[in-house]
Amino acid sequence: MATSRSNGIPVPAVRRLSLYLRQLESLAANSRKTVSSRQLGEALGLTDAQVRKDLAYFGQFGHPGVGYRVNELVTRVRSILGTDKTWNVLLVGAGNLGRALFCYRGFTKKGFQIVAIFDRNPAVIGTHPDPSRRIPVQPMGELDETVRRRNIRLAILAVPADHAQSVAREVLDAGVRGILNFAPVALRLDESVPVAAVDLSVHLEQLSFQLAGAPPQPKRNAVHAAARRRR
Amino acid sequence: MATSRSNGIPVPAVRRLSLYLRQLESLAANSRKTVSSRQLGEALGLTDAQVRKDLAYFGQFGHPGVGYRVNELVTRVRSILGTDKTWNVLLVGAGNLGRALFCYRGFTKKGFQIVAIFDRNPAVIGTHPDPSRRIPVQPMGELDETVRRRNIRLAILAVPADHAQSVAREVLDAGVRGILNFAPVALRLDESVPVAAVDLSVHLEQLSFQLAGAPPQPKRNAVHAAARRRR
Repeated sequence: MATSRSNGIPVPAVRRLSLYLRQLESLAANSRKTVSSRQLGEALGLTDAQVRKDLAYFGQFGHPGVGYRVNELVTRVRSILGTDKTWNVLLVGAGNLGRALFCYRGFTKKGFQIVAIFDRNPAVIGTHPDPSRRIPVQPMGELDETVRRRNIRLAILAVPADHAQSVAREVLDAGVRGILNFAPVALRLDESVPVAAVDLSVHLEQLSFQLAGAPPQPKRNAVHAAARRRR
Repeated sequence: MATSRSNGIPVPAVRRLSLYLRQLESLAANSRKTVSSRQLGEALGLTDAQVRKDLAYFGQFGHPGVGYRVNELVTRVRSILGTDKTWNVLLVGAGNLGRALFCYRGFTKKGFQIVAIFDRNPAVIGTHPDPSRRIPVQPMGELDETVRRRNIRLAILAVPADHAQSVAREVLDAGVRGILNFAPVALRLDESVPVAAVDLSVHLEQLSFQLAGAPPQPKRNAVHAAARRRR
């Protein structure tokens, strides 16, 4: 079982912690006060035993006869994940994907603030990918100074595959400590550097697996199901 | 344990199948002929037992004294995942993220071809998000006819959160059977509909967890580590 580098907790348990947090935040938004491990698991397709086991890695959260207190657990999980504070993040790559990520509101909502964007291409330096924010694309030469001044610890790479490795080293040399890599290539870095890779096609593969394995259904069913849902 | 809807195989095993495929494709690109479960697992931070257990859900692939034959396993895993053929995919949403996904080359490489793009906004209808392809943004009214004519089974949603639910129903009514949702909202759909949700901030949470849990390191170490790597 792969374990997280810093503390020996299985990586899948840490991943599920993010899922629990999403679910808990949605319960909190609906003013739910408490939730059981069974209810939390059901919404995510997990057993109550799995939920209890996962959370036990991080502490003692349940209350006998009550279950989990939603707001309390949200606060504690955010603190465990380190998202109870705001992280300053930089982004390298001002192409289509980089600009989309720069404008993606989901990051800010979770405490990740993209405060700088860099590119190697002189043609885009100084342009504003998000007109509503006064953040121009900077040249790579300003990396060091910006990382230091804005206290940046995380970098998102949205660069072509053949640039990713050299850009990863540049951001690490500048003081960044974790990398989220959107380039479709595996980075070769020191094992101590936390790296997460995003391959968007993996998600489509999971869907095609389900469709390829499922018996064919006439289109009529989908229409009827939708009609039922609208009632 | 959550299991895939169509066949009772645990969802995490199906997810890891995608990871094995990436690794195998990279081995094949480097002309590697065979690989052991230990070697395959090591590259992904998994034990050899986990690799063997996962693959056993899908068939008998190993050869005694040889391990797995790389090209053979690539072919069989692609067939299991349904990516041995090309899937026609539609995309709804021609904003920043939609345009980025439309141009994302990783999908095509894995057998997913975005053949149509739709939007509700009249201002973008008829524009070409990727000038190198002759695919204009279509109005939602053309959904049914396009899904039928192009035999589309998968849809990617890159629409605002408050539109996602109604757009999901529209694409299902048109005959789509699986949805990849980038909108930051949980879709309420019939349980039989395969849905994958992408929340890009989850990946950053996993990194912040590792950094929040790790002891602080002076920047000097990163520079020295990088210098060592360059030697």
